[in-house]
Amino acid sequence: MVAKVIVFRLGHRKERDKRISTHVALVARAFGASGVIYSGEKDEVMEKSIMDVVERWGGPFFISYERNWKRWLKAFNGVKVHLTMYGMPFQQRMNRIREEASSRKLCVVVGSEKVPSELYRLADYNIAIGNQPHSEVGALVVFLYELFDRNLKEEFERAKLKILPQERGKKVVKLEEKTE
Amino acid sequence: MVAKVIVFRLGHRKERDKRISTHVALVARAFGASGVIYSGEKDEVMEKSIMDVVERWGGPFFISYERNWKRWLKAFNGVKVHLTMYGMPFQQRMNRIREEASSRKLCVVVGSEKVPSELYRLADYNIAIGNQPHSEVGALVVFLYELFDRNLKEEFERAKLKILPQERGKKVVKLEEKTE
Repeated sequence: MVAKVIVFRLGHRKERDKRISTHVALVARAFGASGVIYSGEKDEVMEKSIMDVVERWGGPFFISYERNWKRWLKAFNGVKVHLTMYGMPFQQRMNRIREEASSRKLCVVVGSEKVPSELYRLADYNIAIGNQPHSEVGALVVFLYELFDRNLKEEFERAKLKILPQERGKKVVKLEEKTE
Repeated sequence: MVAKVIVFRLGHRKERDKRISTHVALVARAFGASGVIYSGEKDEVMEKSIMDVVERWGGPFFISYERNWKRWLKAFNGVKVHLTMYGMPFQQRMNRIREEASSRKLCVVVGSEKVPSELYRLADYNIAIGNQPHSEVGALVVFLYELFDRNLKEEFERAKLKILPQERGKKVVKLEEKTE
């Protein structure tokens, strides 16, 4: 069992990255992370769009802004994994990381265009999801999927909406508010 | 063995989708598809950026534009899979799809914001990678990863660059041109 996973999105640029960072956050939520922290430009529109999803589809999930990624990451008391196409194949490191993450928090760092070189030293693991150029969204998904042993999170707390899977078409049900 | 996989990206909008569609295409290449076809707005800048990656990192991989997605998909002689959060859990369909794709081509369709409802009928399978809102990039990655039995493609033809995986930092080697 993995303890707690936080995704750190580095260097968000409001204009250029709004959709990719949103996908990073939504994927983090759907694939079992507890929340996403981002640095770069503060972006309230993006934060709101993520929290709207949490409000309707459930959580718990948080998004928060951190100006100083380096200080934050240095202070983070847990396993630090940096996803990069230059890193070691995840297939060779996943078991070890999963084991370490069973007793400690884990932070997965995904960069945007240019990643500061200090990050390679600050990370406990520099991990590649294939050594080909592709996507931080894609890399994050496979990493989380494997980290949680390919079990997708199915229950989200306080969800107002839930999909009933269909062969054709769409079916969404509204859930009753439960008093706890 | 999966025969041949093509990704169809629906409804590309040049301004809004340029980065997401680029990630869709790069993920398609890195995770073993033969190429990507897209509809919506023709986008030569995006096409060029994908072919630049192919030029440097190898192929084979194509990107092409198709104005009429419906006609194209109807004429497609193979298995048609539509990735949608409303569909059936992929865990329940993957074996069957993989088997069908061993003797026939497969087309994976990923939409953008609004997907035409006819697509749900035209597709042989409407498949969800988790019934939660997240990302077409994320859904595509997990689908291809599972379709190819979690074996990542490692060799790309005519690649000029190749990464040597490192624990820290980056190492890229330039490959010699081979005469065939």
